[in-house]
Amino acid sequence: MAQLLRVQNFDVSSDGIGAGEDQSLDRPFGLDGAETVFAWAGATASRPRRTGPGGSRGLDDYFTRDFAHDIGAEIMGRNKFGPRRGSWQDHEWRGWWGDEPPFHTPAFVLTHHRRPSFTLSDTTFRFVGGDPATVLEQARETAQGKDVRLGGGVTTIRQFLDADLVDTLHVAVPPLELGSGLRLRESPEELLDRFHLEVVPGPSGVTHHLFRRR
Amino acid sequence: MAQLLRVQNFDVSSDGIGAGEDQSLDRPFGLDGAETVFAWAGATASRPRRTGPGGSRGLDDYFTRDFAHDIGAEIMGRNKFGPRRGSWQDHEWRGWWGDEPPFHTPAFVLTHHRRPSFTLSDTTFRFVGGDPATVLEQARETAQGKDVRLGGGVTTIRQFLDADLVDTLHVAVPPLELGSGLRLRESPEELLDRFHLEVVPGPSGVTHHLFRRR
Repeated sequence: MAQLLRVQNFDVSSDGIGAGEDQSLDRPFGLDGAETVFAWAGATASRPRRTGPGGSRGLDDYFTRDFAHDIGAEIMGRNKFGPRRGSWQDHEWRGWWGDEPPFHTPAFVLTHHRRPSFTLSDTTFRFVGGDPATVLEQARETAQGKDVRLGGGVTTIRQFLDADLVDTLHVAVPPLELGSGLRLRESPEELLDRFHLEVVPGPSGVTHHLFRRR
Repeated sequence: MAQLLRVQNFDVSSDGIGAGEDQSLDRPFGLDGAETVFAWAGATASRPRRTGPGGSRGLDDYFTRDFAHDIGAEIMGRNKFGPRRGSWQDHEWRGWWGDEPPFHTPAFVLTHHRRPSFTLSDTTFRFVGGDPATVLEQARETAQGKDVRLGGGVTTIRQFLDADLVDTLHVAVPPLELGSGLRLRESPEELLDRFHLEVVPGPSGVTHHLFRRR
């Protein structure tokens, strides 16, 4: 079986915004109110890091429980790891994800500035440079036959789409507008030359857009 | 986390038929044309026993790839194992599922007639009597913290619903009528006193009914 590159549960507002432009340590998404865009996933029974019982078990839950299915590595942009641009100044600060990151696989962080790998729980962060195809090749080798998840953010997904490396792309669109920020695409139609699209309006109000390479 | 009892990818025609009444060795579903009810799953990339590439990767594929997610045991009715009623006469015949059954966990076959367990590939079939609650208790213990899948057929699911033991129930309804046969319920509404229901009309034409215990 081919090893796919999959975008899983990427959240975009109904006006197409995937992140703000004013990221800081206190505002990982660079935008006030962005957490409401992710709220649908947090409400599900199978969301990462749920420790207690409860949560919904309808359609949205299928997407959160698929998050790690057959995934052997993640690729993320540097700003999904942390807000700092330029050279690393503080190796003590080990990212936004806490002592128990929700990835549970090796995670490749794209950066022009190297720093040593480290492991938190069962996630090893590796800091890698190079073009998307080269990084994907490394991630595939590490994934040992499993698929690779492209974790975002917006800019990183755009880079891999531009390089035509993405096999499947799941975009969750809750009924919320954010106004301004970084756009994944101007419209879903932009990808239809290369991707099939299924649009599934979910009973919770979230619409799931499922792209797969033609 | 609780160990759920889950019905996954159970197929019912648009007029509510889950199986025919005339099962035989050559007609496992007891009805000509019943295989068309299952065709949607066979078309997906992640269906059990797909060996080559290809297949769809839209909404339906989320359901087939969830089939085994966090499942540690299956419970099935005797007639999902084989057509024979009454005492076992031929221990050489080891069920409909071939040398590589798609379960990959212990499978508990409900029967009043004991026969020895046996293993095919990574599926061990155990033949057990007793009421649904007792069998579920055995299956949960074997599943070691994972969920238990209730595999069907229709009569078995009805028994477990009557005993109020089912936590989630996914019924896939393709746009096909079968006319007559065994019904899961007269209508989905019958379960709404005890279950939340999300109805998701899929882009492929299959409607997914997602029940979860209130």
